Amino acid sequence: MGADAAYHLYYWPTIPGRGEFVRLLLEELGLPYVDVARSPEAGGVAAVAALRVGAGDGAPAFAPPVLVPPGRGLEAAISQTAAIAAYLGETHGLAPADPIARAQCRAAMLTVMDVVAEAHDVHHPVATALVYEAQQAEALRRARWFVDERLGQRLRFFERLLDAGGGPWLVGAQLSYADFGLFQLLAGLEFAFPRAFASWSDVAPRQLELRAAVAERPNIAAYLRSSRRLPFSRQGIFRDYPELDGEPTPQA
Amino acid sequence: MGADAAYHLYYWPTIPGRGEFVRLLLEELGLPYVDVARSPEAGGVAAVAALRVGAGDGAPAFAPPVLVPPGRGLEAAISQTAAIAAYLGETHGLAPADPIARAQCRAAMLTVMDVVAEAHDVHHPVATALVYEAQQAEALRRARWFVDERLGQRLRFFERLLDAGGGPWLVGAQLSYADFGLFQLLAGLEFAFPRAFASWSDVAPRQLELRAAVAERPNIAAYLRSSRRLPFSRQGIFRDYPELDGEPTPQA
Repeated sequence: MGADAAYHLYYWPTIPGRGEFVRLLLEELGLPYVDVARSPEAGGVAAVAALRVGAGDGAPAFAPPVLVPPGRGLEAAISQTAAIAAYLGETHGLAPADPIARAQCRAAMLTVMDVVAEAHDVHHPVATALVYEAQQAEALRRARWFVDERLGQRLRFFERLLDAGGGPWLVGAQLSYADFGLFQLLAGLEFAFPRAFASWSDVAPRQLELRAAVAERPNIAAYLRSSRRLPFSRQGIFRDYPELDGEPTPQA
Repeated sequence: MGADAAYHLYYWPTIPGRGEFVRLLLEELGLPYVDVARSPEAGGVAAVAALRVGAGDGAPAFAPPVLVPPGRGLEAAISQTAAIAAYLGETHGLAPADPIARAQCRAAMLTVMDVVAEAHDVHHPVATALVYEAQQAEALRRARWFVDERLGQRLRFFERLLDAGGGPWLVGAQLSYADFGLFQLLAGLEFAFPRAFASWSDVAPRQLELRAAVAERPNIAAYLRSSRRLPFSRQGIFRDYPELDGEPTPQA
């Protein structure tokens, strides 16, 4: 099969980041894809860098990830993680069919991505253009709020979605792309905030079940064992700075 | 016509906020809607507050806005501004028909909403749970980055979308819900950052044309003259704190 029959994913090669939310869906669906940054013949990292803002007149995305459907060029480039996930899910049967349920599924995925952005901003509250060390004082204050309040609010919300729909998936009985988003979010939160995550996990029993069920799906299990699955680190969105983690302070 | 034939919009009654992105679409499309917070018989503000996280077991949204389609109950509630906008646009002919163009339109709207969140976080970089005055030092640092760099990056990106598609709209020749999003974003940025916005406006000529064209659409023009259109203030997302605005520092 030629590369023309494959999706092309443009994302950085050394971090899971937002690209991982797309990769998980391509893997689950068994769709052939070219991971451009790790494919010199597809252009490698330079081809990813060329897509983002400031890179040139034709760049179609503010930032990676970008997905190009099979047989198409950059005129068909789709950016924004949640939009890519919805496109894959709705095109390949990993989304509800009813229009209102589709919208609710998109909303669940958007809320996942809101928490991704919040977790990132714990270590970058001032500017993405500065390194963490240049905004550590602000980060410590933001971490306190995230650990004490926000993380619990977010986990309680997803748990309520699972309760309301009857589970086991975010949008009721049918597996959707949003479930893979929540899976990856929980993995990142546990990596970056192990003590806070452990403390809050008693409000999230259904989420832990969902996470385990996603990990056991055959294509996902094989992917997680492969070298294609990148580990978290101190680059990217989820970073294990111990000073930003902690036990939540009991609220009055 | 009874309220059952109308959309129900749940959002706060005193700020444009994220609800305004939904209101503009309902107005443009001429769809009957009940603005629940301003309608005592629909439950008023208490009905909005009951939807959000922490409010109760059945609350379907992390936060307003929430839209309920005509004749349906809260089981059909759609949250997340970008998901609501896409639902309205795709249901009522204000979105592309091609699936890839639909995904690109959603991505454009998501990027609009990313900038909305960034503009909010200029005055709330540490925690939404704290007032601005309790995080002013951090806000001043974040404002410097937003005014100097980020605002220009964002405006350049939207301008490139307009250039690439040939205009006059964000997704090529067809008006879509994303255009109303950009309209409202530009209005908010100009209110909150008048000096920075004026300085950067030379990179955004097509956006200023789009904004004027949206304002002249008959339903929008009538809405903007009505009492339903709420002014910006120092509540909500876009706030005119002069200390957070300024001329961009020339970059090296």
